[in-house]
Amino acid sequence: MSILQEPEKKPVQDAKSAPKGKSGKPKRVEARTLKGFQDLLPEAVLPRKAVIQTIENIFELFGFVPLESPAMEYLDILLGAGGEGANKELFRLESPEGEEIALRFDLTVPFARMLAQYPDQLKAPFRRYAWGPVWRADKPGPGRFRQFTQVDIDVAGAPTVAADGEIIAVMCTIMRDLNVPDYTVLINNRKLIDALLLDCGIDDPNRQKHVLRVIDKRAKVGLDNIRLEFGPGRIDDSGDPIPGVGLDEVTIDKILAFIAVEASTRVELVEALMPHLSDSKTAQEALDELRELAATLEALGIAEQHARFDPSLARGLDYYTGPVFEMILPKAPEFGSIMGGGRYDGLVSRFKDQPIPCTGMSVGLDRLMAALTYLGCVSTERTPVQVLVVSMGNVPKSETLRLASELRSAGIRTEAFFASKKKMQMGNQLSHADHYGIPVAVIIGEDELLQGVVSIKDLHEGKSGRADIAERDAYMEAGKTGQITVSRNDMVAQVRAILGNQATD
Amino acid sequence: MSILQEPEKKPVQDAKSAPKGKSGKPKRVEARTLKGFQDLLPEAVLPRKAVIQTIENIFELFGFVPLESPAMEYLDILLGAGGEGANKELFRLESPEGEEIALRFDLTVPFARMLAQYPDQLKAPFRRYAWGPVWRADKPGPGRFRQFTQVDIDVAGAPTVAADGEIIAVMCTIMRDLNVPDYTVLINNRKLIDALLLDCGIDDPNRQKHVLRVIDKRAKVGLDNIRLEFGPGRIDDSGDPIPGVGLDEVTIDKILAFIAVEASTRVELVEALMPHLSDSKTAQEALDELRELAATLEALGIAEQHARFDPSLARGLDYYTGPVFEMILPKAPEFGSIMGGGRYDGLVSRFKDQPIPCTGMSVGLDRLMAALTYLGCVSTERTPVQVLVVSMGNVPKSETLRLASELRSAGIRTEAFFASKKKMQMGNQLSHADHYGIPVAVIIGEDELLQGVVSIKDLHEGKSGRADIAERDAYMEAGKTGQITVSRNDMVAQVRAILGNQATD
Repeated sequence: MSILQEPEKKPVQDAKSAPKGKSGKPKRVEARTLKGFQDLLPEAVLPRKAVIQTIENIFELFGFVPLESPAMEYLDILLGAGGEGANKELFRLESPEGEEIALRFDLTVPFARMLAQYPDQLKAPFRRYAWGPVWRADKPGPGRFRQFTQVDIDVAGAPTVAADGEIIAVMCTIMRDLNVPDYTVLINNRKLIDALLLDCGIDDPNRQKHVLRVIDKRAKVGLDNIRLEFGPGRIDDSGDPIPGVGLDEVTIDKILAFIAVEASTRVELVEALMPHLSDSKTAQEALDELRELAATLEALGIAEQHARFDPSLARGLDYYTGPVFEMILPKAPEFGSIMGGGRYDGLVSRFKDQPIPCTGMSVGLDRLMAALTYLGCVSTERTPVQVLVVSMGNVPKSETLRLASELRSAGIRTEAFFASKKKMQMGNQLSHADHYGIPVAVIIGEDELLQGVVSIKDLHEGKSGRADIAERDAYMEAGKTGQITVSRNDMVAQVRAILGNQATD
Repeated sequence: MSILQEPEKKPVQDAKSAPKGKSGKPKRVEARTLKGFQDLLPEAVLPRKAVIQTIENIFELFGFVPLESPAMEYLDILLGAGGEGANKELFRLESPEGEEIALRFDLTVPFARMLAQYPDQLKAPFRRYAWGPVWRADKPGPGRFRQFTQVDIDVAGAPTVAADGEIIAVMCTIMRDLNVPDYTVLINNRKLIDALLLDCGIDDPNRQKHVLRVIDKRAKVGLDNIRLEFGPGRIDDSGDPIPGVGLDEVTIDKILAFIAVEASTRVELVEALMPHLSDSKTAQEALDELRELAATLEALGIAEQHARFDPSLARGLDYYTGPVFEMILPKAPEFGSIMGGGRYDGLVSRFKDQPIPCTGMSVGLDRLMAALTYLGCVSTERTPVQVLVVSMGNVPKSETLRLASELRSAGIRTEAFFASKKKMQMGNQLSHADHYGIPVAVIIGEDELLQGVVSIKDLHEGKSGRADIAERDAYMEAGKTGQITVSRNDMVAQVRAILGNQATD
């Protein structure tokens, strides 16, 4: 178990009191993780770091530059920027000056704030990337945490679907470089849905939002249920009533027919949508944008199977105004959307009279890592450490340190084993290497010290039963599986050779 | 200005109300950074990332592995762990379940919590590294922020100064690899001060802490002032009374003589301290540890000038129990201690009956970056982007994208310029490259498109006036400084050549 969640227990003491018992002796505080939060052990952190590095390299390849904002903002910066849902989920607190502040719920709103705040430095067009934790006081559940990591890109000041296309290209390149076997970006355009709703006579913004939310639930609750939600509403599994939009049957059929349109290519899908829409300005603009996006994706060399137009994609957040996109993994559909984004031309206007059109996307790192693990696309490296220096008997600690320093000077990642006396037996030291997955032990005892030699143990040897390997004879020297004794001058070269062999196994 | 602080203004609206004016029109929210927090622009983020990478590589070289804990903890986990100062500076909030929680004020207490919580996974000895933001509701000031980044290592379960020595070696290796010209780790041992205080008959823990705090202030307020603070107290510059410890003159002289002891080597300093201490068990243990640490540092190859014993070093936090250390930069003394740490054998006992001895250190990244900038030890790279693709006239956007894709496929970090129509003039596109420091422009116009060529502009050329460079003649082709026209097949090779030339300038 590499991702650890809180044991659901109560605190052992009143949090206000200092941790002292009645006897004056220190009282223990129960070690526990905050509900809905996670601790990450090395085998969880290591692949995350590798994935973030891969993603950052791709961001920079596409011309994005890094920007950072603090974890907290004044409440009014965040309140209302992400809709009602985001408002309710804010972790709120007070500044030392008594002002209302809150933890950021995404990286997009702080970016919009910075665009408005630093117009001279962040001149449009501007491409930024950022990653970091965000917080939502949501109901926690399996894979749902109250603190999670987002990895974002955004392009500001480029009012063209060419920029949206590049965002989609970044999403595809990430999946390619992470060796994901099968991936698809689903793409829609909010203007398309707007045109449809106008054609249906639904012009009240709240009803429009309601329809969007229902469309968004199609994959989750199924066609029959959303038909009921478009109409009179329904009772959900728990017996709770879900209010309906109250549309008539003709309108519901029109919407359901529209969001069910499919075609084998992006260009063909645009043509297939045409009969479903009037020739309103909004409809024509939406279709034109979709056509241009098709040309953009073609120019960027993105295969049809990796980016598909899907008129049923709605996406929850209120602020999208144009193309929207989500990455799904056909071989791991249960993980849902692992990246998503879209165009939000109005968000910066919260802060500034002059609007700045923006488009971008966010990777949900926790969900991505879960999907990659499921698909076998992450390294199972348990430690970056390559060598454990093990000492026996009365070898002075300074000798252990000298060996470790020599290995480190050669660039070999080395831990020197130091523990309490009773843990210094050789067996315990080797089982430490085994527990943490360190592949090589360099062993020094009093005899070795006198003779100017060290023993080197290949800890992968024996485990994998490599009877067929030519080098095995050498390892069998001294009757110890995978252990050789070499002069100290040869130590670095021999360790390198063993690490090299392990890498090619 | 790359690190940006909040303009000290009031919010323009009540944070509770949605951002709507009386007219129903959206009301602007003033874009501003939270007081005491900082936004980081690309030229500030880029060197931070490079420094963190350098530090992490060293951590792994020394056998440390990464661990992550969430930003928040139950209040009782943090309260009292860092002393009164840390208690007062906690950012507190409530969980959705109504429990008292707080943002972490360091990475050490969460580490101690995890050690107690996951005994089977994190078996001692265990070396971990971690970095991330921590929060303290402190008085903000120049270079003092309420959110700052710590970069930490700790060794758990190694009750030997060999482990402390390795921590000090990591601190020195970081400075060496960051090319810092001059650096010194100041080292002391809490047991040494304990022995001194016992010799002086000061056995009340609160008085001991008070003496420690006064010793800690020596560099800040000077010898005369701390003499007063050891005695009757004094009035500070602002007129506030500072209460004294109330020691007699003989004791004060004894303490001042002790903390003033100097010697030219670590071994000699231990000898020089001996006459100042009794032969109490505490004193002998402290001196033995110091001797062993001297041998450890010798074995690790750490020069005398890079690690010095200093009996006046106290360090604020309550939890230290053995060796303590701080990194100072003699060529940038005004930045104070940029890394610091020590042994804390009692902290895990907050959570667990069985104590786990620990030692570690923390890099104050914000302060380190300020010092490195002052010393000229950070790269002044303004962007990772290498090429801007500039389009002129009616070149279709898909052609711009094709060029960008080709460059990216060759591993060249490329931005394609897209903006609103009025910003698409060539001059504006080139000034964009200039503003963000992008070194090369690839230019495509309608003529170039017809002829199957592109123009490539070396944007470092001209600026640096490289009249003596042989390639200049080629650049002068077409009369444009630093601009050449090449066939599209040669584009990647030519861009690489120009980037290579710039790197060797």
